[in-house]
Amino acid sequence: MTETVKYNQPKLTLVGAGPGDPDLITIKGMKAIANADVILYDALIDKELLDYAKRDAVKLYVGKRGGMRSIKQDQINLLIVKYAYEYGHVVRLKGGDPFVFGRGHEEAEYVQNFGISTEIIPGITSATAVPALQGIPVTRRGISESFWVITGSTKSGKLSRDIELAAQSTATIVVLMGMKNLPEIVKIYQQLGTSETPVGIIQNGSTSKEVTGFGTMDNILNVVFEKNIKSPAIIVIGKVVETHPELAEVLSEINHY
Amino acid sequence: MTETVKYNQPKLTLVGAGPGDPDLITIKGMKAIANADVILYDALIDKELLDYAKRDAVKLYVGKRGGMRSIKQDQINLLIVKYAYEYGHVVRLKGGDPFVFGRGHEEAEYVQNFGISTEIIPGITSATAVPALQGIPVTRRGISESFWVITGSTKSGKLSRDIELAAQSTATIVVLMGMKNLPEIVKIYQQLGTSETPVGIIQNGSTSKEVTGFGTMDNILNVVFEKNIKSPAIIVIGKVVETHPELAEVLSEINHY
Repeated sequence: MTETVKYNQPKLTLVGAGPGDPDLITIKGMKAIANADVILYDALIDKELLDYAKRDAVKLYVGKRGGMRSIKQDQINLLIVKYAYEYGHVVRLKGGDPFVFGRGHEEAEYVQNFGISTEIIPGITSATAVPALQGIPVTRRGISESFWVITGSTKSGKLSRDIELAAQSTATIVVLMGMKNLPEIVKIYQQLGTSETPVGIIQNGSTSKEVTGFGTMDNILNVVFEKNIKSPAIIVIGKVVETHPELAEVLSEINHY
Repeated sequence: MTETVKYNQPKLTLVGAGPGDPDLITIKGMKAIANADVILYDALIDKELLDYAKRDAVKLYVGKRGGMRSIKQDQINLLIVKYAYEYGHVVRLKGGDPFVFGRGHEEAEYVQNFGISTEIIPGITSATAVPALQGIPVTRRGISESFWVITGSTKSGKLSRDIELAAQSTATIVVLMGMKNLPEIVKIYQQLGTSETPVGIIQNGSTSKEVTGFGTMDNILNVVFEKNIKSPAIIVIGKVVETHPELAEVLSEINHY
């Protein structure tokens, strides 16, 4: 009697889950989850997405918390390799897009060294979608011809100096993971003499827990304090923010007094 | 005998179809198509997406061709209003994301003046997804902390001046609709003395008709000519492009000779 051993080819699929709302994943991403033998998922992933998985798929939370970042990333890399060889198809489910500040490229590069094939399924980045869901377009003819997306939390923890170039352009600026550097951003605009620049802050965008605050560089810190807005939040800066009704109201009040 | 009149509330949903592959639409976008009474779709939309629609839904191609742009946009705006009042739920199906150079905000603003409620369903912009599908991350820790997305075709038809500021930053630069201005982009880098900057061109990204070319600002015009790369194509500029195997090969040849 011959025993049949089920052997699944090791494979990694990096899937972007989008900005939060589980229906903002792609059809391709959903199909990958349904096909997965193992799902390693991040913080900020809606658990509903795991319902697409096979009943016997391994589902493991590998979200990072503050501190110990690099150690944890190494552990995730190793887990992907281990599970791919043990079970076959590993889906790495990440918030937003895996290649937009998602460290997806590092994970793909790591596992490729072990001869594991990798597929990328892009997701919607919150950089564009979260403002859009608030009715704010990152570009708009005659107002903004470009948009610039930056992390507020670089490898060194500092704000990128690029913001000073961007602040001189027509670009809409979107800062991800930048709440703790908001006072520094405000200072840059004050030094450039453009502190009347409109700014919006959106916490938990695209979900039922969404909280927003709008103002200009002059008063945004007060708005954030009063509304108790916290991370994870995105910061949108530029003239397009004026299209938001809440800011339009604030601005008309300023003009009124 | 009373006649029953079917009356659908007028409504517009702006849906982003993503970069080309029909499976890169969101679940939410697919559901909106299934619910639509009318679908107004652009060029570059995969016809497969129309299969999600109700059998009796009106499906109308409203893609723009070269020239006569503003006239056509006015016509589209009017069509949305007309169909919303006549049929009810209009889905405006656009390539990429409706709020990333998609003029979705103009359409939403126009119809809101007629009291028609509007919903936005974001899509994946080709600005991030098309490089990703080539294995190029727009951000990568230690290489690029930001990315800057610019239209190569502004209201006036000219290249946005933002590119000169962007070229001095550490940002990855993605130019959409910029092929006809590629020589001008090359010139900017030559004048800045940074013509060794890596650049990749991807035509028909995420589809079976994808064509790519890689090089530096010094030789990219030759590459485009030799490979006969045409619009619609996106241009990716910056150090992250070096992660692409095709460019790695080119660079090692340069170093060899």
